[in-house]
Amino acid sequence: MIPELKYDEKGLIPAIIQDAENGDVLMMAYMNSSSLQMTIETGYTHFWSRSRQKYWKKGESSGHLQEVKEMYYDCDADTLLIKVNQIGGIACHTGSRSCFFNKIER
Amino acid sequence: MIPELKYDEKGLIPAIIQDAENGDVLMMAYMNSSSLQMTIETGYTHFWSRSRQKYWKKGESSGHLQEVKEMYYDCDADTLLIKVNQIGGIACHTGSRSCFFNKIER
Repeated sequence: MIPELKYDEKGLIPAIIQDAENGDVLMMAYMNSSSLQMTIETGYTHFWSRSRQKYWKKGESSGHLQEVKEMYYDCDADTLLIKVNQIGGIACHTGSRSCFFNKIER
Repeated sequence: MIPELKYDEKGLIPAIIQDAENGDVLMMAYMNSSSLQMTIETGYTHFWSRSRQKYWKKGESSGHLQEVKEMYYDCDADTLLIKVNQIGGIACHTGSRSCFFNKIER
Protein backbone atom coordinates (compact mmCIF):
# COMPACT_ATOMS: atom_id res chain seq x y z
CA MET A 1 0.00 0.00 0.00
CA ILE A 2 1.38 3.41 -0.95
CA PRO A 3 1.32 5.96 1.85
CA GLU A 4 0.48 9.65 1.45
CA LEU A 5 3.74 11.12 0.27
CA LYS A 6 4.77 14.73 -0.28
CA TYR A 7 5.84 15.14 -3.88
CA ASP A 8 7.55 18.37 -4.92
CA GLU A 9 6.00 20.94 -7.26
CA LYS A 10 7.08 18.80 -10.23
CA GLY A 11 5.42 15.71 -8.76
CA LEU A 12 8.72 14.10 -7.83
CA ILE A 13 10.15 12.58 -4.68
CA PRO A 14 13.85 11.75 -4.18
CA ALA A 15 14.71 8.09 -3.65
CA ILE A 16 17.96 7.12 -1.96
CA ILE A 17 19.12 3.72 -3.16
CA GLN A 18 21.10 1.70 -0.65
CA ASP A 19 22.76 -1.69 -1.02
CA ALA A 20 20.69 -4.00 1.19
CA GLU A 21 23.67 -6.17 1.93
CA ASN A 22 26.50 -3.85 2.92
CA GLY A 23 24.71 -0.52 3.44
CA ASP A 24 26.57 1.42 0.73
CA VAL A 25 24.58 4.33 -0.65
CA LEU A 26 24.58 3.61 -4.37
CA MET A 27 22.72 6.52 -5.96
CA MET A 28 19.86 8.95 -5.66
CA ALA A 29 17.19 9.41 -8.31
CA TYR A 30 13.65 10.73 -8.54
CA MET A 31 10.31 8.96 -8.68
CA ASN A 32 6.83 10.21 -9.47
CA SER A 33 3.77 8.39 -8.19
CA SER A 34 3.60 6.18 -11.29
CA SER A 35 7.23 5.08 -11.16
CA LEU A 36 6.81 4.36 -7.46
CA GLN A 37 3.76 2.26 -8.34
CA MET A 38 5.80 0.41 -11.02
CA THR A 39 8.56 -0.17 -8.47
CA ILE A 40 6.15 -1.64 -5.94
CA GLU A 41 4.33 -3.76 -8.51
CA THR A 42 7.37 -5.19 -10.30
CA GLY A 43 9.82 -5.33 -7.39
CA TYR A 44 12.44 -3.49 -9.45
CA THR A 45 13.29 0.21 -9.22
CA HIS A 46 11.73 2.56 -11.76
CA PHE A 47 12.47 6.28 -11.83
CA TRP A 48 11.46 9.43 -13.65
CA SER A 49 14.40 10.80 -15.59
CA ARG A 50 14.43 14.58 -15.23
CA SER A 51 16.97 15.04 -18.02
CA ARG A 52 15.27 12.71 -20.50
CA GLN A 53 11.73 13.36 -19.24
CA LYS A 54 10.72 9.74 -19.35
CA TYR A 55 10.28 6.65 -17.25
CA TRP A 56 13.43 4.73 -16.62
CA LYS A 57 13.64 1.17 -15.39
CA LYS A 58 17.04 1.12 -13.72
CA GLY A 59 19.35 -1.30 -15.54
CA GLU A 60 17.00 -1.86 -18.46
CA SER A 61 19.81 -1.42 -20.98
CA SER A 62 22.84 -2.32 -18.84
CA GLY A 63 21.25 -5.31 -17.12
CA HIS A 64 22.12 -3.77 -13.75
CA LEU A 65 18.61 -4.01 -12.37
CA GLN A 66 17.83 -3.22 -8.75
CA GLU A 67 15.73 -5.78 -6.96
CA VAL A 68 13.81 -4.11 -4.14
CA LYS A 69 14.31 -5.61 -0.70
CA GLU A 70 12.79 -2.96 1.59
CA MET A 71 11.23 0.47 1.13
CA TYR A 72 10.93 3.26 3.66
CA TYR A 73 9.78 6.87 3.70
CA ASP A 74 11.00 9.49 6.13
CA CYS A 75 9.34 11.31 9.03
CA ASP A 76 8.00 14.12 6.86
CA ALA A 77 7.14 11.80 3.96
CA ASP A 78 9.16 13.66 1.34
CA THR A 79 12.06 11.24 0.79
CA LEU A 80 12.26 7.51 0.04
CA LEU A 81 14.93 5.06 1.11
CA ILE A 82 15.01 1.86 -0.94
CA LYS A 83 17.24 -1.05 -0.04
CA VAL A 84 18.10 -3.15 -3.06
CA ASN A 85 19.96 -6.12 -4.32
CA GLN A 86 22.12 -4.41 -7.00
CA ILE A 87 22.32 -6.91 -9.86
CA GLY A 88 25.83 -6.99 -11.31
CA GLY A 89 27.08 -4.90 -8.40
CA ILE A 90 27.25 -1.71 -10.45
CA ALA A 91 24.80 1.16 -9.89
CA CYS A 92 26.51 4.07 -11.63
CA HIS A 93 26.43 4.75 -15.36
CA THR A 94 30.18 5.45 -15.15
CA GLY A 95 30.77 1.78 -14.32
CA SER A 96 31.46 2.57 -10.69
CA ARG A 97 29.76 0.55 -7.99
CA SER A 98 28.29 3.66 -6.35
CA CYS A 99 27.62 7.11 -7.82
CA PHE A 100 29.31 8.69 -4.78
CA PHE A 101 32.95 8.22 -5.68
CA ASN A 102 34.00 11.88 -5.60
CA LYS A 103 35.37 12.85 -2.23
CA ILE A 104 35.29 16.44 -0.98
CA GLU A 105 38.59 17.10 0.75
CA ARG A 106 38.42 19.49 3.65
CA MET B 1 37.96 22.68 -1.54
CA ILE B 2 34.40 22.85 -2.77
CA PRO B 3 33.87 21.33 -6.20
CA GLU B 4 31.55 22.67 -8.89
CA LEU B 5 28.16 21.40 -7.82
CA LYS B 6 24.80 21.55 -9.56
CA TYR B 7 22.35 23.34 -7.31
CA ASP B 8 18.65 23.30 -8.22
CA GLU B 9 16.68 26.37 -9.32
CA LYS B 10 16.31 27.35 -5.64
CA GLY B 11 20.07 27.10 -5.08
CA LEU B 12 19.76 23.89 -3.07
CA ILE B 13 21.41 20.49 -3.20
CA PRO B 14 20.13 17.41 -1.33
CA ALA B 15 22.48 15.94 1.26
CA ILE B 16 22.09 12.33 2.36
CA ILE B 17 23.32 11.88 5.91
CA GLN B 18 24.74 8.46 6.72
CA ASP B 19 26.03 7.08 10.00
CA ALA B 20 29.78 6.71 9.43
CA GLU B 21 29.99 3.79 11.80
CA ASN B 22 27.19 1.41 10.86
CA GLY B 23 26.06 2.77 7.47
CA ASP B 24 22.47 3.59 8.49
CA VAL B 25 20.93 6.34 6.40
CA LEU B 26 19.83 8.83 9.06
CA MET B 27 18.13 11.64 7.15
CA MET B 28 18.11 13.80 4.06
CA ALA B 29 18.14 17.59 4.11
CA TYR B 30 19.09 20.44 1.81
CA MET B 31 22.13 22.66 1.67
CA ASN B 32 22.86 25.83 -0.23
CA SER B 33 26.40 26.87 -1.03
CA SER B 34 26.74 28.85 2.22
CA SER B 35 25.54 26.02 4.47
CA LEU B 36 27.89 23.66 2.64
CA GLN B 37 30.69 26.14 3.30
CA MET B 38 29.72 26.31 7.00
CA THR B 39 29.66 22.50 7.12
CA ILE B 40 33.14 22.26 5.65
CA GLU B 41 34.57 25.04 7.82
CA THR B 42 33.10 23.92 11.15
CA GLY B 43 33.09 20.14 10.63
CA TYR B 44 29.43 19.98 11.67
CA THR B 45 26.44 19.71 9.33
CA HIS B 46 24.54 22.91 8.49
CA PHE B 47 21.47 22.94 6.28
CA TRP B 48 19.02 25.34 4.72
CA SER B 49 15.57 24.78 6.14
CA ARG B 50 13.04 25.02 3.31
CA SER B 51 10.08 25.21 5.71
CA ARG B 52 11.60 27.82 8.02
CA GLN B 53 13.65 29.56 5.32
CA LYS B 54 16.74 29.85 7.46
CA TYR B 55 20.09 28.29 8.22
CA TRP B 56 19.96 25.37 10.54
CA LYS B 57 22.90 23.87 12.40
CA LYS B 58 21.75 20.30 12.94
CA GLY B 59 21.37 19.59 16.65
CA GLU B 60 21.82 23.20 17.72
CA SER B 61 18.85 23.03 20.09
CA SER B 62 18.73 19.27 20.76
CA GLY B 63 22.48 18.79 21.14
CA HIS B 64 22.35 16.06 18.52
CA LEU B 65 25.07 17.54 16.38
CA GLN B 66 26.52 15.72 13.41
CA GLU B 67 30.29 15.61 13.24
CA VAL B 68 31.39 15.25 9.63
CA LYS B 69 33.66 12.33 8.88
CA GLU B 70 33.63 12.16 5.07
CA MET B 71 31.88 14.06 2.29
CA TYR B 72 31.16 12.89 -1.24
CA TYR B 73 29.25 14.17 -4.27
CA ASP B 74 27.78 11.99 -6.95
CA CYS B 75 28.67 11.39 -10.59
CA ASP B 76 26.50 14.24 -11.88
CA ALA B 77 27.37 16.54 -8.96
CA ASP B 78 23.79 17.17 -7.86
CA THR B 79 23.64 15.16 -4.63
CA LEU B 80 25.86 15.04 -1.53
CA LEU B 81 26.56 12.07 0.71
CA ILE B 82 27.89 12.99 4.15
CA LYS B 83 29.11 10.40 6.61
CA VAL B 84 28.80 11.59 10.17
CA ASN B 85 29.29 10.73 13.78
CA GLN B 86 25.74 11.30 15.07
CA ILE B 87 26.15 12.79 18.53
CA GLY B 88 23.63 11.29 20.95
CA GLY B 89 22.72 8.68 18.35
CA ILE B 90 19.47 10.41 17.41
CA ALA B 91 19.06 12.16 14.05
CA CYS B 92 15.29 12.55 13.76
CA HIS B 93 13.24 15.29 15.42
CA THR B 94 10.73 12.58 16.42
CA GLY B 95 13.37 11.08 18.73
CA SER B 96 13.97 8.18 16.38
CA ARG B 97 17.52 7.24 15.50
CA SER B 98 16.85 7.58 11.76
CA CYS B 99 14.15 9.54 9.93
CA PHE B 100 13.43 6.46 7.82
CA PHE B 101 11.33 4.44 10.25
CA ASN B 102 8.18 4.14 8.09
CA LYS B 103 8.19 0.95 6.07
CA ILE B 104 6.23 0.63 2.84
CA GLU B 105 4.66 -2.81 2.80
CA ARG B 106 4.30 -4.37 -0.61
